[in-house]
Amino acid sequence: MITVLSGGVGAARLLRAMSVVTDPVNLVAVVNVGDDLVLHGLTICPDLDTITYTLAGLNNDEAGWGLRGETWRVMDELEMLGGESWFRLGDRDLATHLYRSQRLSEGATKTEVAGELASRLGVRVKLLPVTNDSIATEFVTDLGRLTFQEYFVRHRHDVAVNSVKVAGAARAHATAEVLRALRDSARVVIAPSNPVISIDPILQVPGVLEALRERRDDIVAVSPLIRGAALKGPADRLLRELGYEPTTLGVVDFYGELVGTWIIDVADAALAEPIGERGHRVVVTTTIMAEPDDARRLAEAVLS
Amino acid sequence: MITVLSGGVGAARLLRAMSVVTDPVNLVAVVNVGDDLVLHGLTICPDLDTITYTLAGLNNDEAGWGLRGETWRVMDELEMLGGESWFRLGDRDLATHLYRSQRLSEGATKTEVAGELASRLGVRVKLLPVTNDSIATEFVTDLGRLTFQEYFVRHRHDVAVNSVKVAGAARAHATAEVLRALRDSARVVIAPSNPVISIDPILQVPGVLEALRERRDDIVAVSPLIRGAALKGPADRLLRELGYEPTTLGVVDFYGELVGTWIIDVADAALAEPIGERGHRVVVTTTIMAEPDDARRLAEAVLS
Repeated sequence: MITVLSGGVGAARLLRAMSVVTDPVNLVAVVNVGDDLVLHGLTICPDLDTITYTLAGLNNDEAGWGLRGETWRVMDELEMLGGESWFRLGDRDLATHLYRSQRLSEGATKTEVAGELASRLGVRVKLLPVTNDSIATEFVTDLGRLTFQEYFVRHRHDVAVNSVKVAGAARAHATAEVLRALRDSARVVIAPSNPVISIDPILQVPGVLEALRERRDDIVAVSPLIRGAALKGPADRLLRELGYEPTTLGVVDFYGELVGTWIIDVADAALAEPIGERGHRVVVTTTIMAEPDDARRLAEAVLS
Repeated sequence: MITVLSGGVGAARLLRAMSVVTDPVNLVAVVNVGDDLVLHGLTICPDLDTITYTLAGLNNDEAGWGLRGETWRVMDELEMLGGESWFRLGDRDLATHLYRSQRLSEGATKTEVAGELASRLGVRVKLLPVTNDSIATEFVTDLGRLTFQEYFVRHRHDVAVNSVKVAGAARAHATAEVLRALRDSARVVIAPSNPVISIDPILQVPGVLEALRERRDDIVAVSPLIRGAALKGPADRLLRELGYEPTTLGVVDFYGELVGTWIIDVADAALAEPIGERGHRVVVTTTIMAEPDDARRLAEAVLS
């Protein structure tokens, strides 16, 4: 069993690539829920949904978000009614949120709902929200305290961040399934997701870091930065704003002692030496997953 | 100002007809919220929505429910996910529920939301939910206690009812706007809605009956039954099950002393005498509103 600490798109693509080179029933994704939100009465879990849709082959790979063949009937009407339509929810996507919200109101946990949706969509990777408790990643900015979606969607992450807080994390509990996966996996992979806002909220849930600290040699991280830039999203900018170098080296420093082995892109090969000097093993390969062959090669590096 | 105690379809059609013969800004609808429900995390107000859509000219008159040009993307997907899809929510309709649920979560009242939706859709009749508190019409049946939608939609009202309860009514408060409308209107009309499940939940909210009891002479009711049958829904059957005659005479007995003037259909002209003997004034006219001319004639009878 291999467990992957997962944010959204980067993790989804890595899990998809790993599913090609190993039986997906051997894979567990421990998924960030720090950007979950309640909007229009609906509980939305963006990272869980991105992974589920990607592994189900339903995602819109060209757009980089959303579902293939998505339609926007409800949003168009909501806009006409003067409702909150800045967070775009397609019709097909909405069905997921309706399903989840109804099941949660019936007393199901997020973990149960994630399993039901995965099963219904033919996803065989086990998807585990890190906690069933409510946690919320928040941004302390010059505009005040912003919720995740205010920062990410409404302001398109174009606002200076002074610090990031994960509200509720200290009181949250990692689920038993998550703690078991972290303990029993042959390897724990940190996906090339945003370290600050996708992976760190997972690490902040009590129990997770403790479980990982015991097994540094089994922990492999894939750098989300190449030549100091994220493929998508504000990872480089956030690292800089929080005082880290906005390169793979900054990511290495961010995770520190936690990681045994780093997988970095060939474009960053020159960083292998300083990373080695910090006491990590280093594997250099292609970390961009746009081409199936490259994705397979990365998955093999992660699994070997 | 004329106030109309309103359920769903029958009230919506009467209000639409009245809007043709008088300026709609003179009309207030005090609307039942006993069949409101929370489903998929969304707060749905079927009677308010039916009236709003009908007055906005958006309703599907042929089908007798739902919106014109409605689509079913979300429901189709939800069904595919194995979700609760027995209560059909069209894409356009869903936008209303998303709007309402978001506004309620922001602290708005149902009254405020009803006004916003009406305004956005160009509806000039004032739509007032009888209360902003939560009340729920329930059916004690041989199958156990059923919620309104379980009885009405899931079982298509084909189950014997022993009694009807309006949970929460005794603790609910009529809104100040409702009490003012009942007090200040020149006339209060009881729409040809189901007496047991649409109008009675309004009357059970403390304050309403007290306001109406003072002004029997100004209260006009339109019978929802013609030749002992409802045009739509289970009014006749419910009256019989609750011990009333399943005719206009049963409806007259159900409301009792409350009503000053009864408007009954020409097909029931023979009942004018027994209704008169019970101490009510009686107007005989066409109460079916399928044809615009008939609808106008009924509206004129109600207003004259």
